[in-house]
Amino acid sequence: MRVSQRGQVDPFIVMDVMERARAAEADGRRIIHMEVGQPGTPAPEGARAALSAAMAAGPLGYTVGLGLPELRARIAQHYGQSYGVDLDPARVVVTAGASGAFILSFTALFEAGERVALGLPGYPSYRHILSALSLAPVGIETTLENRFQPVPSEIPRDVQGLIVASPGNPTGTMLDRPALDALVETCADRDIALISDEIYHGIDYERRPVSALEITDDVHVINSFSKYFSMTGWRVGWMVVPPSHVRMIERLAQNMFICPSHASQVSALAAFDCRDELNRNLSVYAANRRLMIDGLAAAGFASFAPPDGAFYVYVDVSDMTDDALALSAEILEKAGVAVTPGLDFDPRRGGRMLRFSYAGSTEDIAEGLDRLKTWRASRMG
Amino acid sequence: MRVSQRGQVDPFIVMDVMERARAAEADGRRIIHMEVGQPGTPAPEGARAALSAAMAAGPLGYTVGLGLPELRARIAQHYGQSYGVDLDPARVVVTAGASGAFILSFTALFEAGERVALGLPGYPSYRHILSALSLAPVGIETTLENRFQPVPSEIPRDVQGLIVASPGNPTGTMLDRPALDALVETCADRDIALISDEIYHGIDYERRPVSALEITDDVHVINSFSKYFSMTGWRVGWMVVPPSHVRMIERLAQNMFICPSHASQVSALAAFDCRDELNRNLSVYAANRRLMIDGLAAAGFASFAPPDGAFYVYVDVSDMTDDALALSAEILEKAGVAVTPGLDFDPRRGGRMLRFSYAGSTEDIAEGLDRLKTWRASRMG
Repeated sequence: MRVSQRGQVDPFIVMDVMERARAAEADGRRIIHMEVGQPGTPAPEGARAALSAAMAAGPLGYTVGLGLPELRARIAQHYGQSYGVDLDPARVVVTAGASGAFILSFTALFEAGERVALGLPGYPSYRHILSALSLAPVGIETTLENRFQPVPSEIPRDVQGLIVASPGNPTGTMLDRPALDALVETCADRDIALISDEIYHGIDYERRPVSALEITDDVHVINSFSKYFSMTGWRVGWMVVPPSHVRMIERLAQNMFICPSHASQVSALAAFDCRDELNRNLSVYAANRRLMIDGLAAAGFASFAPPDGAFYVYVDVSDMTDDALALSAEILEKAGVAVTPGLDFDPRRGGRMLRFSYAGSTEDIAEGLDRLKTWRASRMG
Repeated sequence: MRVSQRGQVDPFIVMDVMERARAAEADGRRIIHMEVGQPGTPAPEGARAALSAAMAAGPLGYTVGLGLPELRARIAQHYGQSYGVDLDPARVVVTAGASGAFILSFTALFEAGERVALGLPGYPSYRHILSALSLAPVGIETTLENRFQPVPSEIPRDVQGLIVASPGNPTGTMLDRPALDALVETCADRDIALISDEIYHGIDYERRPVSALEITDDVHVINSFSKYFSMTGWRVGWMVVPPSHVRMIERLAQNMFICPSHASQVSALAAFDCRDELNRNLSVYAANRRLMIDGLAAAGFASFAPPDGAFYVYVDVSDMTDDALALSAEILEKAGVAVTPGLDFDPRRGGRMLRFSYAGSTEDIAEGLDRLKTWRASRMG
């Protein structure tokens, strides 16, 4: 049976690492998971309680395509409270995770064959979703000096779109206000559609991230309940689009998704009222981050940009290897710590990089760092 | 801000009807809903109980991209029990509803610009999802004589795909074994990728529908927990693909969706053990169907193919109008019954057709039919 070329997206190399970690655990070894990209905490208790109540109250049928009106209103209110942005709830679209929002954005903004720029290293699915939708991802190789974020002079000629992520995955670095201002201005000048992935907003440590909505309405802002709200498996997120795009996105969403999970929308609405629990999660990440910054350096992993947000550190290991996949296998085997080679995030340069996640428990992070230090000392000695 | 042409999909005309019905209800009128495309019943009690237990037991994080292994195995077992088909669970992909499965199928099978045939009348989102993915839907105008299903001689030249639906929406008619055999053979001969939408399987009345998997492995079969399992708002479905397509679909699914809702997958697994409740729902549809077949004829809506499955009757009203939208507005205003004009399902001929849904309660269906009869008598008189 026939298949398409656009359907042939690359596999995730991290899957290889995860499979080896699973096999090691099946052999009875205890593995510290620094490869995971999600919180270890559940959806907040209040979110789960709200769903239990809703399930008892009646059927959870289709919602309207743009999502529950009260959830859209609550998200709009969030922009007032957190960013000082007065946002019309009509511009908020509830989606099947940030993933669903990318599909909607990319089809709404770009014709088949068009080119969309994005920073490398970056979330690998940007590239793969673009390819599956017959779009050409155009990588911008960002630098440690620019904290792994693209700058206007690096945006390639002849692109129709730009994806930015702040805080970014795998680096955790942010675009500050002047940096984001400059990208917004360049995109406006060059008629480049700007997509701002703000999925790690809320998980920040020293200053709050800037939303592109503070600067412009001419942007697709994408966010999710997966990270700060600790609801990865619930597949619920949102996007904010220009007023003139709402009807188009609504029609696309009705046809491509019908609606996001009603159950997840009910839970997400209640999650806004669970700040105490969510902030306790956040204080764990903050403690983990401090341990990581010191502990990685002590274990000889010293070349990284300290993360502003998210729960990752992206480390240059070019002093040790140009085969990060082999190095990650060695670290798993010798130290019992699973880490992610950079190749998924940056196909050309990622062979010299590792991503360490600190989304786990503080106890696990501390033990992982100890193991890394011991392994590194034995490797040097 | 720029937008794409492919993002400009048509609005649903039924939304207009639904908005008028909502306005009438806001004015205090009682409206009988024969326009809805979903069960009025909740997810089975056992499915909800399983989710409550899972929420109490631990975090519902991401699942693997293809879905929970135990759910994939249970779906495979279902093909053995219901169709006598021995199916490898590795070929089962859990998806974000049938909608998610269409996105995966269409990107996996077709390049931008390729042409995909489908029967008219048919589910409108086939056409709109295809367009959004830069594919060209090619309508086949089916006939009452062929029970609104395409036959091999009608498949256009130069198409790369064919979508069939049995039982179909809006007609409820099925392809019998010889008819499906013939389509499978023609697709094989002409290297046309066959997509079989089996979402209404399980809701059938006089004979069970044939699955394309009984005939061939060279097909994408798409199904869902929305209809028979009464879980529309949960957005969980599945597809079965040829063995050689599994890895490609897995990579696409990981990138485009990460995974279907974990909560919905847990509920779906338990729904397989709720046969008593689901069969009670089914007996309501069966009673409603008998009322509809007699009652519509008594109300002067006599030109239709009696439905084999699903919960719709698609009626030719060309003796009354060639403006089904105006007629549906009149029926709503005068009879207080919301029905769907055919235009969403068949752009050229749907102006002479109405879809009546009997997914509601038997009491509502009986009252709706009484109202229709009274209205029709007064209109004639």
